[in-house]
Parts: sequence; structure tokens; C-alpha cells
Amino acid sequence: MYRLYNRVPAWVHQSSRRCSRSQVHSLCSDCNIAKMPDLMKIKQIVRKSLEACPVGTDEENLQNGRDFYKFMFGNYPQLRVYFKGAENYTPEDVQKSERFQKQGQRILLAVHVVASCADDPIVFKGYIQETVNRHRQYKMDPALWLAFFTVFVGFLETKKTVTEEEKAAWAEFGKLFNEEALTHLARLGLPH
Amino acid sequence: MYRLYNRVPAWVHQSSRRCSRSQVHSLCSDCNIAKMPDLMKIKQIVRKSLEACPVGTDEENLQNGRDFYKFMFGNYPQLRVYFKGAENYTPEDVQKSERFQKQGQRILLAVHVVASCADDPIVFKGYIQETVNRHRQYKMDPALWLAFFTVFVGFLETKKTVTEEEKAAWAEFGKLFNEEALTHLARLGLPH
Repeated sequence: MYRLYNRVPAWVHQSSRRCSRSQVHSLCSDCNIAKMPDLMKIKQIVRKSLEACPVGTDEENLQNGRDFYKFMFGNYPQLRVYFKGAENYTPEDVQKSERFQKQGQRILLAVHVVASCADDPIVFKGYIQETVNRHRQYKMDPALWLAFFTVFVGFLETKKTVTEEEKAAWAEFGKLFNEEALTHLARLGLPH
Repeated sequence: MYRLYNRVPAWVHQSSRRCSRSQVHSLCSDCNIAKMPDLMKIKQIVRKSLEACPVGTDEENLQNGRDFYKFMFGNYPQLRVYFKGAENYTPEDVQKSERFQKQGQRILLAVHVVASCADDPIVFKGYIQETVNRHRQYKMDPALWLAFFTVFVGFLETKKTVTEEEKAAWAEFGKLFNEEALTHLARLGLPH
């Protein structure tokens, strides 16, 4: 099982060991991770990496969605608690589940959408706010909004080789997503 | 009350009176509507026009969402049938409704999102498919997927002057959206 977080996801620790000034190294000249000057660049990198797991209605794409939950349930079984009725699902159960076929498409699509909208702050923030609204009922640990991206990059690594530049882009992307999610939780008067 | 459609929205008739070859005139040299060579151009135009009705959490933006439903319920009251419990709502009822404050943000956001994703066919189609999935329970007349854009451009005209170029871009955008929505309805074995 992967270590998910002790409130702070593992990649933050890893990153801070290498560079104390910035998780994305945008201010750092001491490490070899590419500098990422702006959101367009981050968007470009994360969208490109998502080509390894497209959504769609044909079998290959449906499998991408199932594969995300197979990865998550196999490596982070503690997160199954948020999926009522599937708290004890194995990856094999996910594979056979129509629910997780649909849910798999939904979560992959959400990541694709938010990546596509990343260069439009109004839409990016609006989509995150709406995603938080829809998840309100699940009473999630707020740390999971950031931790999701650790899970997602882990999943992506089952589909392709994820470069250091891509990992840095996803880390920054997750940070931006998380900032808006937590801001919105605070706005709603919820734990954040 | 606006005339919504006799199966075929009014703008199709208007368009076909002016140009028999293409609703968006992309092949037409006989009319004065700007040619729109590609999806990037359409995306650019519709996104720019959406600046007149941003989403967001402050009062001005929340009002944009309410205003959409006030416009729709005021001008197309026959569509209220799809909003259980609000079948007899007036625009004034919408203004006072927390439900339509939230719903207004959701529908505006959906239009912003789908516009932002228009240059990525996988995400664009995926988002439309998921939107159709979520609306399955309402048993909508399938003609409404296209007609929505007539309503939306009418709403946009309450916020800004919508140019002929913008109207043509929205018409093409609606056509593309509708094609995928109807394809997905067929895929689901539903009326289309």
C-alpha cells in the first residue's frame, strides 16, 4: 500500500528535501527540474500527460476509468470508506462493477476538464467550487483534495513514464486546485 | 414569450433563408456573416462573449445565474415543466430562490466549461456525454439540446450586444454540442 499522507502528502516532503524554496522549483536554480513560468505551461504539460488516459465510450477508454479506481482501491484502501457499499471492494470487484465503470469515467473526465480550464481562472475556480459542493455530502477529510493528485500521478505512472517535469507540473496544478478547494470549504463554513 | 422551436429552432430557419449551404456560412460567399474556419475561432468567440456573464461566488456573479433562469422562465415558461416544484415560478420567484441561485451557477458554469474545452474533442465530447447522462432522469425532449443555445443567446443579449459573428459562432457551437448529445442519446438507446 502506498503511504498517502500524514496530513502533508509525500511529494511535499520529497520536494522540500530537494528544494526548500518552491515545490515547483520555479524560483530554484539548484535543482534540475524544469522551471515552469506560468499556468499555460503547466496546463500544456498536464494535458499532454493526460493523453495516456483518455475518456470515452469505447472499451479501451472505459477501462482507463476502471483502472483509476483499481489503482486507488488497491493502493489506498483506506479511501474506500468514502464509497458506500464498496468499502471492502478489491481491484477485481472494481473491474466487474458498472458503478465504477461510470464513476471512473466521471473522475477521469473531471481531471481532463479541470486541466483544460486551467488557463481561465473564472472557469477553473468555478469548476473546483462546484466539485467541492458536490462532495459536501461525503464529509471528506479536506487534506484529500491535495492528496488526490498524489494518487492520480501514481495512477498515471501505471499508464506511462511520468517525467520529473510532469510530476512538478502536477504538483503545482494540485496546489492550485487545493488552494481553491480549501478557500471554498472555508467559504461554506466547513473544515478546511 | 419567445417562440422556442417547432422541432427546428428558429435560427435554423433564419439561417437557411440566408444561406442554403451552411448554418455557419463557412462555405458561403454570398452573405456577410464572418467565415469561421475552425473550432479554435469558434471557441475564441464564444468564450469572449461569455465574459458578459461570468460565474463566481460574489453577488454580481450569483445574479448572472439567477438572471439566466429569470430569462428562461419569463420567455420560455413551457420549459418550467422540467423543474419539479417550480412549474409555476415567475422570474420574481426565481430571484428569491436559493435553488435557482445554485442552479444558475451550475448551468452558467457548464456553458463556460464546455466552451473552454471546445478545442479538445475528447474532453468536449466527454463533458457532453456526462451532461446527457445526468439529464437522463428528466426525460427531456431531445430537441431541447439544440434549442438550449437559442435560449442562451437570447439571455446573452440581455447582458451585451451580441454581434452577428457571435450569433453564428454560437449557432455552430450549439450544432456541435447537439450532434454529440444526440449521438450519445442514441448510444444509450434513448429517443434522439
